[in-house]
Amino acid sequence: MSTAYHGTFIHAVSPFQIEILPETTVVVSDAGVITHIVRGDLPAQVRELAPSPIILGNNEFFVPGFVDTHVHAPQYAYAGAGTHVPLMTWLTEYAFPAEVKMRDLDHAQDVYSKLVDRMVANGTTTALYFATIDVDPCVWFAKIVQEKGQRAFVGKVCMDRNAPPEYVETTAESLSRTEEFFAAVAALKTDLVEAVVTPRFIPTCTLELLRGLGELAKRYGARVQSHLSESRDEVAFVESLHPGEGSDSDIFAAAGLLTSKTVMAHSIYLSDNDEQLLREHGCGLAVCPISNYFFAGSTFPIRERMHKGLKCGLGTDVAGGYSPSMLQNVRALVLASRGRNHHDSTALIADYKCGFYVATRGGAAALGLEGVVGGFAVGMQFDALRIKVGGPSNPVDVFPGDDWERKFEKFVNLGDERSIKGVWVKGRQIA
Amino acid sequence: MSTAYHGTFIHAVSPFQIEILPETTVVVSDAGVITHIVRGDLPAQVRELAPSPIILGNNEFFVPGFVDTHVHAPQYAYAGAGTHVPLMTWLTEYAFPAEVKMRDLDHAQDVYSKLVDRMVANGTTTALYFATIDVDPCVWFAKIVQEKGQRAFVGKVCMDRNAPPEYVETTAESLSRTEEFFAAVAALKTDLVEAVVTPRFIPTCTLELLRGLGELAKRYGARVQSHLSESRDEVAFVESLHPGEGSDSDIFAAAGLLTSKTVMAHSIYLSDNDEQLLREHGCGLAVCPISNYFFAGSTFPIRERMHKGLKCGLGTDVAGGYSPSMLQNVRALVLASRGRNHHDSTALIADYKCGFYVATRGGAAALGLEGVVGGFAVGMQFDALRIKVGGPSNPVDVFPGDDWERKFEKFVNLGDERSIKGVWVKGRQIA
Ligand SMILES: [Zn+2]
Ligand SMILES: [Zn+2]
Repeated sequence: MSTAYHGTFIHAVSPFQIEILPETTVVVSDAGVITHIVRGDLPAQVRELAPSPIILGNNEFFVPGFVDTHVHAPQYAYAGAGTHVPLMTWLTEYAFPAEVKMRDLDHAQDVYSKLVDRMVANGTTTALYFATIDVDPCVWFAKIVQEKGQRAFVGKVCMDRNAPPEYVETTAESLSRTEEFFAAVAALKTDLVEAVVTPRFIPTCTLELLRGLGELAKRYGARVQSHLSESRDEVAFVESLHPGEGSDSDIFAAAGLLTSKTVMAHSIYLSDNDEQLLREHGCGLAVCPISNYFFAGSTFPIRERMHKGLKCGLGTDVAGGYSPSMLQNVRALVLASRGRNHHDSTALIADYKCGFYVATRGGAAALGLEGVVGGFAVGMQFDALRIKVGGPSNPVDVFPGDDWERKFEKFVNLGDERSIKGVWVKGRQIA
Repeated sequence: MSTAYHGTFIHAVSPFQIEILPETTVVVSDAGVITHIVRGDLPAQVRELAPSPIILGNNEFFVPGFVDTHVHAPQYAYAGAGTHVPLMTWLTEYAFPAEVKMRDLDHAQDVYSKLVDRMVANGTTTALYFATIDVDPCVWFAKIVQEKGQRAFVGKVCMDRNAPPEYVETTAESLSRTEEFFAAVAALKTDLVEAVVTPRFIPTCTLELLRGLGELAKRYGARVQSHLSESRDEVAFVESLHPGEGSDSDIFAAAGLLTSKTVMAHSIYLSDNDEQLLREHGCGLAVCPISNYFFAGSTFPIRERMHKGLKCGLGTDVAGGYSPSMLQNVRALVLASRGRNHHDSTALIADYKCGFYVATRGGAAALGLEGVVGGFAVGMQFDALRIKVGGPSNPVDVFPGDDWERKFEKFVNLGDERSIKGVWVKGRQIA
């Protein structure tokens, strides 16, 4: 049985362009795939295909679900706090202890449930997650996401050096546990949750581990994620560990971890050579604007890098970034882009449209899901949000004369989970 | 009859320090003034003074109400939109038309009611407003704020040049209407709403008008507000109008408009001489971080300017800034400060504590209300917010072990109107 959705649909068709489709019917198959998009009045024949169409009101529209390309699930416990220390201190004082605590599965249940609920309420239909180094809590997490219906890519984190004694693995353990986690996720028998090869970052992974993970990624045809050139202290740490061996990018490339299924978080300090490596391998980049303000000591040149053909998605980086809301991160991306270009032309400013692109279609492309999610087209899966602006308990006020473009811009700048009235993943309503 | 409030109180005591007072009782007189602050268990004798104490729960605390030092009330109709044009274009295309529309009092009622409700829901207990050039809608607005119980300083805007033909006054009209507005506000017989002398900015005011307004301000002992050195195009416009006559600051000073009751919005491009003028006259500055990203072509050096003894408050600058939420502006201030200091030491970064200071006690000081609002002390008026974190429909999740400092930081970084469970102005609960 198909379902039809009738009303206004708004999506990003390029980094610079939003398409607004008023009075449109989108028909979605039982398998969650868009089979028809028809402009104009709700066609009579749709009623045969889909007898109970969902018809939107005046101040409502559909947008694609958000794609969060970088989240540390266990760190959600302290999201919004600990914003006063640099990255390497923060890892030791906040991140590692929070991750260790996930061995208490009751605590893990509390943190993970609240996080996924919060992300779904905020419209994140797809997420690329770092979990922890331990298999059991990782499997626990994968089951929670599966149950809640989000599209998720989950990494068991790998670390065999420069980590606290209570939170480190041997190289062999790290590799075998990664395979264990892959098997456990396969056993969940869902096409919405997938295991990801996840070296934390170079400082915590020996070259042997990196090479082993590169081989695993190849053998499983698996996605890869890690952190790249995130901050000055991290870059200096890598240089001290591997003098003369090249940048983060070089080291990952040598280990076979730069592939078209790789997403690298941050990637602030890239040389021309690094950029070329990432582009040639077709890697995605997870841009985390809030977190960059706190850790990177710089902002990400989003328009410049997209112009160079790099695939950029948006990431909240919970909890290096304090907000699990993709809208908050879109806004931070826009501010960061304006800040970068204070003294330049406006040509390179990422405006709210560009931010929305990066949060939806751009993130999908970074994850290799172009043509699957991030927009509305026949053949794409229906990952969508029903948005409402105006009315009681809505953060967005509307006034007579507000057209669709203005309603959409207000949603991007002022909306929050209260504006999101429905969330669909692959045609199934999950909130 | 007094009222007692018992629980945790959190306020900023300096730009760098938050004070947390757990287990504290604050007694507020019928006149809205704090008469006692007692640490420890709710004292028995308080029950005599205040038989129905308000006792806070575990995840609740009081903070001072927010002080918004710069808002354009009529522009709220398009807040969240129009973020793509520079200041002078934006004034012509968005601001002036929106202000003219306030002549339709039904429309004004709609926009103004929604704005004040929104601000109060977001915890803004005090605001310094620009309204429009027309007396009737200004009086209408003052009545709406009075009715809703917010502490408000309202300006009838003055413009006698460089404005659209349908939205400009003669010099004489601008002056006489300002007096008319002062009389109308006095007739409201409220100590919470006050009229403010409000030349829009130098480009729209002749020197004769500025001088006349300076005399009015002196005669009425009135507060003054305007815009100062907001953007490159504005600074260039002033220079072209007044070649060789000095900066905005010099021109305002010559007109007698820089006083200890003056608040100047933005004030981005200040010379040492300008800073000295503002400091000597005891003027307040309204720092508008979101709006600065869009119009200023720079960010405000908040820590540096406070260090120099300038009184800085936070302003939303609705609708140059898209958000009426002071919390959103605190966050933007923190990002902007981090952005400014990417390549410097962390010494000058305004963190969330500093942002909170600027949004409360700092704003009060900028408005000449130090010792009146912005903190908790005997003799101060009770302008306060009851905050709750955690629980259903709250944007902030809490976890076991979160202490008051963490709950407070989470509130500042993640809270919104759903975390604000009660709003008091001068001891009266208005939301
Ligand atoms: Zn990360
Ligand atoms: Zn303004």
